[in-house]
Amino acid sequence: MKLSDIAERVGGVLEGNGDLEITAVAGLREAARGDISFLANPKYAAQVAGTHASAVIVPQDWDRAGKCALIRVENSDQAFAQVAEFFYEPVPLSPPAVHPTAVVAEGAKLGEGVSIGAHVVIDDGVVVGDGTVIEPQCFIGYKTVIGSNCHFYPQVSTREFTEIGNNVIVHNGTVIGSDGFGYAVQEDGSRTKIPQIGKVVIEDDVEIGANVTIDRARFGKTRIGKGTKIDNLVQIAHNVVVGEHSVMCGQVGVSGSSIIGSKVILAGQAGLAGHLEVGDGAIVGAQSGVMRDVPAKDFVIGSPAMNHLQAKKVIAGTVTLPKLKEKVKKLEAEVAKLSAAKTV
Amino acid sequence: MKLSDIAERVGGVLEGNGDLEITAVAGLREAARGDISFLANPKYAAQVAGTHASAVIVPQDWDRAGKCALIRVENSDQAFAQVAEFFYEPVPLSPPAVHPTAVVAEGAKLGEGVSIGAHVVIDDGVVVGDGTVIEPQCFIGYKTVIGSNCHFYPQVSTREFTEIGNNVIVHNGTVIGSDGFGYAVQEDGSRTKIPQIGKVVIEDDVEIGANVTIDRARFGKTRIGKGTKIDNLVQIAHNVVVGEHSVMCGQVGVSGSSIIGSKVILAGQAGLAGHLEVGDGAIVGAQSGVMRDVPAKDFVIGSPAMNHLQAKKVIAGTVTLPKLKEKVKKLEAEVAKLSAAKTV
Amino acid sequence: MKLSDIAERVGGVLEGNGDLEITAVAGLREAARGDISFLANPKYAAQVAGTHASAVIVPQDWDRAGKCALIRVENSDQAFAQVAEFFYEPVPLSPPAVHPTAVVAEGAKLGEGVSIGAHVVIDDGVVVGDGTVIEPQCFIGYKTVIGSNCHFYPQVSTREFTEIGNNVIVHNGTVIGSDGFGYAVQEDGSRTKIPQIGKVVIEDDVEIGANVTIDRARFGKTRIGKGTKIDNLVQIAHNVVVGEHSVMCGQVGVSGSSIIGSKVILAGQAGLAGHLEVGDGAIVGAQSGVMRDVPAKDFVIGSPAMNHLQAKKVIAGTVTLPKLKEKVKKLEAEVAKLSAAKTV
Repeated sequence: MKLSDIAERVGGVLEGNGDLEITAVAGLREAARGDISFLANPKYAAQVAGTHASAVIVPQDWDRAGKCALIRVENSDQAFAQVAEFFYEPVPLSPPAVHPTAVVAEGAKLGEGVSIGAHVVIDDGVVVGDGTVIEPQCFIGYKTVIGSNCHFYPQVSTREFTEIGNNVIVHNGTVIGSDGFGYAVQEDGSRTKIPQIGKVVIEDDVEIGANVTIDRARFGKTRIGKGTKIDNLVQIAHNVVVGEHSVMCGQVGVSGSSIIGSKVILAGQAGLAGHLEVGDGAIVGAQSGVMRDVPAKDFVIGSPAMNHLQAKKVIAGTVTLPKLKEKVKKLEAEVAKLSAAKTV
Repeated sequence: MKLSDIAERVGGVLEGNGDLEITAVAGLREAARGDISFLANPKYAAQVAGTHASAVIVPQDWDRAGKCALIRVENSDQAFAQVAEFFYEPVPLSPPAVHPTAVVAEGAKLGEGVSIGAHVVIDDGVVVGDGTVIEPQCFIGYKTVIGSNCHFYPQVSTREFTEIGNNVIVHNGTVIGSDGFGYAVQEDGSRTKIPQIGKVVIEDDVEIGANVTIDRARFGKTRIGKGTKIDNLVQIAHNVVVGEHSVMCGQVGVSGSSIIGSKVILAGQAGLAGHLEVGDGAIVGAQSGVMRDVPAKDFVIGSPAMNHLQAKKVIAGTVTLPKLKEKVKKLEAEVAKLSAAKTV
Repeated sequence: MKLSDIAERVGGVLEGNGDLEITAVAGLREAARGDISFLANPKYAAQVAGTHASAVIVPQDWDRAGKCALIRVENSDQAFAQVAEFFYEPVPLSPPAVHPTAVVAEGAKLGEGVSIGAHVVIDDGVVVGDGTVIEPQCFIGYKTVIGSNCHFYPQVSTREFTEIGNNVIVHNGTVIGSDGFGYAVQEDGSRTKIPQIGKVVIEDDVEIGANVTIDRARFGKTRIGKGTKIDNLVQIAHNVVVGEHSVMCGQVGVSGSSIIGSKVILAGQAGLAGHLEVGDGAIVGAQSGVMRDVPAKDFVIGSPAMNHLQAKKVIAGTVTLPKLKEKVKKLEAEVAKLSAAKTV
């Protein structure tokens, strides 16, 4: 695609040779000749000078010259995303069908325009809504109900009675509805399994990453609210309830029966103890360990987690501890001297 | 089911309309009309007043009225678990068989009453004990030996020579026997693979959650002792040995060659360095980072982990650090004044 | 195998009965009669006296007698690894073939000597290099290109356009190329998906553990450099770039767009925030939380992570905090006394 065409399509101002043939998009660092790149985060401004890209999309007020062509736009991040789509070759869609190697129980009900991939297994009593795509090698357990326009990537598995809303996306290898981790301790210290006879409910517009695990409830429902987004390798224990439009980043773990509100953000590797409540709009920092309820809109960090302003003071305090110790030592010497003088 | 029937079956005292038709169980918060709920943890007592449940199972000495019917019992948690089972519809069991799409090597030996699901692959030399269920899409590697009455959920995989005892439950997506993480560093900084030619042994009555990884030994055996329970997304490295009736919560990681005793509890996201020993009955708190041996029955928390009483003092100390700094500053001023006075 | 034969093959000096029949290798603790074990790490020296092994491989200067036979060698770890291989029974290789249950798209190109296991699914446009083994139940997405002599264990999945070099090993359940975690927040707090239209590139000689997740780039490439080794349950977000010969231990998490240099070591459960840079040869300790760039060759620990020498002082400071508080209390009392005396 000609650089001048790109500039026109994103409504940008071109500086440089519009006849350049652009063949791909790339980050500033890894771009090669023929690539177009972009600068959005000022942190990377220094990389523009060194990039091998043939052109860079920059903010309108970019004040440094580059050795390559520039396209000035209002929102460089957004313009670049647009350009990236010009070069994107989508995976060709096969017409919806049930692959002949899929094993679909007779009692399962598939809606209109449903795609069932190779080697999928669908148990009895399953219902799949219109337009939903189940990619190869998924397992859909007994009486699972899946809404319309969902997309299950390969090797997802759902256990019996799972309920999935509409427009839900689940990435490869994710497990929904495995048994909760519940045992009764016997007198000899051995553990007997407490039956986990609840289910998992995933509401509309939820997206779940790869290799996530969401356990079924002991009884009742583990629930993920509408529009919530869950990243890879997250663990959600039995009877957890998550509100709407919340975000759980990679490797977060939530223990049993905790209640996460709406529009909550749990950053990467954060862990929550069981039977807690995290209020609406709260933010839990990366690697934080939440041991007690978090009020709505609070922002907590640390392990154990506390309000981030308090935590920052504590962290600042610990970092200057060696200095504080020195001061105390000096004081002790001076006080000893003063005491001795007084005694004399 | 009539509420009066439920009260009778759990041996409880009914207060309210016994003719109410109960159709499901649910937690206090999410219950709707027709549901029965329960109060066991006093933390949730306030929720009884607001619940939409038609009935609540409460402890005998519950002293507050509710707008719904009550059933008083000695152990409300246990009674509710019993009621939950009244409403549980189990997944219908197919008669044991090998699904026609399963690929079972000729040399594999299947016991009596074994179920092999759709698209399962069983390698040569595998032995499966009586009554064991291997759900769809599992992979059982060369010469793996599985005991009796085990249950493998879909998409479990075991590598060659794995040994599994009796009554072992393994949840979806778990990998048993993958290579340990071992490399020899070359002079140029590159790494060459050290062959991982040991195996994994899982003893009787172990339960393993979803998407867990347990690596085979470099040589010898990685071993999980009888009755131990492992939650989702746990990582167990090569040559780790775990004793009997221990518990490893979600996202725990144990590094190579560490030895975990019996009746040990590793709470969620705890991590252990390699070549450590954790004594019998020890408890490692959530998110703790264990860097040295833990004595039997010790309870450690923190990263680096230390005895929980010591750790609590340290944490309390850090939280009051800003105050301590103020005190030192004040002392410095006073001492300066005293010294000046003395000099004068 | 006779013990004398073993001693001869490893070039060691035998002390004891060379006619002993050795049948297996094992660690000192779990060895039984007929096993040969070894001592390499002095930490385990005390275990030699108590082992049930019939023979132990020891360093040449081992000065304590044992009740079992000994083989003295220069490098006992290496000699034992050699012996372990004498007893290793490799999994018999089937001649390379495409299993009849595999579903391979017509447009896919398979090299010479390629093995495709049972129930594998290979999408259109895929290219697989000579000698590569794809074990059962893998999914290889549209136009994925895999080099020569790679080994994919069962149930690996790659999404469309993934590029894999030569001699790459990927363990069970790993997901390569799932969507990055990127959303645009709307005014009402809901999130809309940002298309993730980049890809993943895995260079030559990389090994990736079990149940790992590596997300595709938002645009451009997520890249894992030549010779890098990744352990189980690691999470690598979109647009991360990892250099050559780096090591990422179990359960590490790297957030979006971070750049990891070459010969970097990220120890277990370490987490990195997004848009960071970790310089060549840097080491990040276990469970560390990296919040800002790490200079080349630096060694950081802690959460938030800092240089390990500074961090050790801080940790030492926190551990002695209760003592420091005592000292300050004492000083306050003495200063109060001195002030009172002065006033009088």
